[in-house]
Amino acid sequence: MQRIIYLNGEWLPEPDAKVSVFDRGFLMADAIYEVTCVLDGKLVDYDGHATRLQRSARELGVALPLTADDLLATHREIVSRNRIDQGMIYLQLTRGVADRDFVYPPEGTPPTLVMFTQAKNVLENAAAKTGIKVALLPDLRWGRRDIKTVQLLYPSMAKMEARARGADDAWLVEDGFVTEATAASAHIVTTDGVLVTRNLSHALLAGITRASILDIAATHGVRIEERPFTPAEAIAATEAFITSATNFVVPVVSIDGAKIGDGNPGALTHEFRQFYIETRRKTAI
Amino acid sequence: MQRIIYLNGEWLPEPDAKVSVFDRGFLMADAIYEVTCVLDGKLVDYDGHATRLQRSARELGVALPLTADDLLATHREIVSRNRIDQGMIYLQLTRGVADRDFVYPPEGTPPTLVMFTQAKNVLENAAAKTGIKVALLPDLRWGRRDIKTVQLLYPSMAKMEARARGADDAWLVEDGFVTEATAASAHIVTTDGVLVTRNLSHALLAGITRASILDIAATHGVRIEERPFTPAEAIAATEAFITSATNFVVPVVSIDGAKIGDGNPGALTHEFRQFYIETRRKTAI
Repeated sequence: MQRIIYLNGEWLPEPDAKVSVFDRGFLMADAIYEVTCVLDGKLVDYDGHATRLQRSARELGVALPLTADDLLATHREIVSRNRIDQGMIYLQLTRGVADRDFVYPPEGTPPTLVMFTQAKNVLENAAAKTGIKVALLPDLRWGRRDIKTVQLLYPSMAKMEARARGADDAWLVEDGFVTEATAASAHIVTTDGVLVTRNLSHALLAGITRASILDIAATHGVRIEERPFTPAEAIAATEAFITSATNFVVPVVSIDGAKIGDGNPGALTHEFRQFYIETRRKTAI
Repeated sequence: MQRIIYLNGEWLPEPDAKVSVFDRGFLMADAIYEVTCVLDGKLVDYDGHATRLQRSARELGVALPLTADDLLATHREIVSRNRIDQGMIYLQLTRGVADRDFVYPPEGTPPTLVMFTQAKNVLENAAAKTGIKVALLPDLRWGRRDIKTVQLLYPSMAKMEARARGADDAWLVEDGFVTEATAASAHIVTTDGVLVTRNLSHALLAGITRASILDIAATHGVRIEERPFTPAEAIAATEAFITSATNFVVPVVSIDGAKIGDGNPGALTHEFRQFYIETRRKTAI
C-alpha cells in the first residue's frame, strides 16, 4: 500500500513527498527527528517523545510549527490515514529551506516538518525470542548525542560493520565505556541482579523506553545503578539487553562473540519486555 | 536570476529541484559533498576536488553515477547554464532513496547527485583585506572529518556561536590542539617564519587549497611543519590564516580577542593569497 505522507500541513502520496534540495536537512543535517511506536493503533509513550522533540527543537533553536494539540492530532491522523495497527511514526523537523550557508537563515524562515509511518509487527519480534549478537565498535559520533539529530551516517556505518562481523548490531564504546547501541539504549544485569545503565549526559540519548524500563525496574524492586559500564563488565554480566521505541526490550546474547550468561535471553530481560508491552497497551493513547 | 540545478541527469529550475523525503541524504546525512571554485568562468583546482570526491564516495561505498569525463563536462555545463564568472559549484552525492533503515539499501539503488551554483565575488573579498576574528570552540564533530560528509550541523552551530561572541568564525579545538575552522583549514606562521599546519589524519579534512598553499610555500622556500598546534601557539604566532576553496587565503587577525602579530593581516598571508590567485587564474580549466 502506498503511504500518505505529512509534509508542512499537506497530505501527500509517497511519490509526491519531496523537499527542496536547499532544505537544510538535506544540505547540512540541520534537523532533528523522533520515532513513536504505534500499538493497537495507539501511540506508545507519546508524552515522552513529544517532550523530547520539544527539547531537541529548543537545542537547535528551531520552533515546532504545530501546537501540542495539533502535534498529537497529526500523529493520530497519520495512523488513521495509513491504517497502522502496529508500527511507528517517524517525524523530522528541519531548519527549513535557504540558500546554502553555515550561518542560519533569517528568523521566520519556515521550518520543514515531515511525518511518515512504517508498519512493523512490533509484538512478534523474532529478535525478542532469540536475542541479538552485538559487536563492539568505537563511538565516532559527534559530542551532542543527547540531541536527536539526523546525523546518522556513523550509526548506519556501524550497523553495516557489525553485520560484516557476523553480529546483528553494534554497541559503541568511547573512552573505555559503552555509550549506546546504534539506535537503542544499552543495559546490563550484573551477577548481583543490579540493572546497570549509563547515566544521562551529552554522550547518549535520553531514551524514552529506557526511562520507562527504569520505572518498571524500580516498581519491581530491582536495584538500579545509572553509571557508565565497560565492555568487560558487559561481557561478565548475567543479562544484557537493548531498549528502543520500536524494539521495546530485546535481549543481547553475545558481545564480540562472548556469550552473555548461558547464551540465552535473560529472565529479567524477558519480564521487562512482557511488563513493558502489558503496561503500554494499557496507557497508549 | 533563478538558478538551473542539476539533479540526477536533469536540468531543473530551482523551485523544481526536489528530492524525496526518503532520500538518505535527508533522513540520515548519508551523503558527501564537494565545493569547487569558479574563477573567470573556469574551475579552480578541479583535479584535487574530483579526486577527493572519489575518495569520499569510496569511503561511504557509494558509486559516483558519472564518468570522470562526464563529471567535468557537467561542472562546465552548470557554469555555462548559470553564467557564473566568479563563485562556486556545490555537488552532493547521497546513497539514494530507500525506506528508512540503518541498514544500507540493496546494491544497485541509484545514488542521488545534485549540483548547483552560487555566484560570489571571490576576488574582492572584504575579509581578505581586513582579516577575520576567530573564537576558539571545542570540536564536537564526528571522528571521520577526513570524509567530506554533509554532517554540518555542528560547524553551523559553531559559526553562530562565534558570531554571538563577536567573532567571524570559529577555530575548533580537540584534546588541546586546533583542528580546523568551521569550513576551512587553519594555519599559523611562527615568529621564526615557519608555516605550521596540522598534519592530515581522521581529525581534519585534506583541504585542496591547503595542499596548494603548501606547494606554493615550498616553492618560495618557506619552512613548513605539518603538525598539530595549540591555541597558545596560534595566539603567539606572527600570522594566522585560513584556506578554503572559495575563500582562498584569508588572514586571521585575532583569536579569542588576542591580536595576532600587530593585529593586521600578515605579509606572508598576503603573498600566499596573491600568488594563489595569480597561479590559479593560469591553471583553471
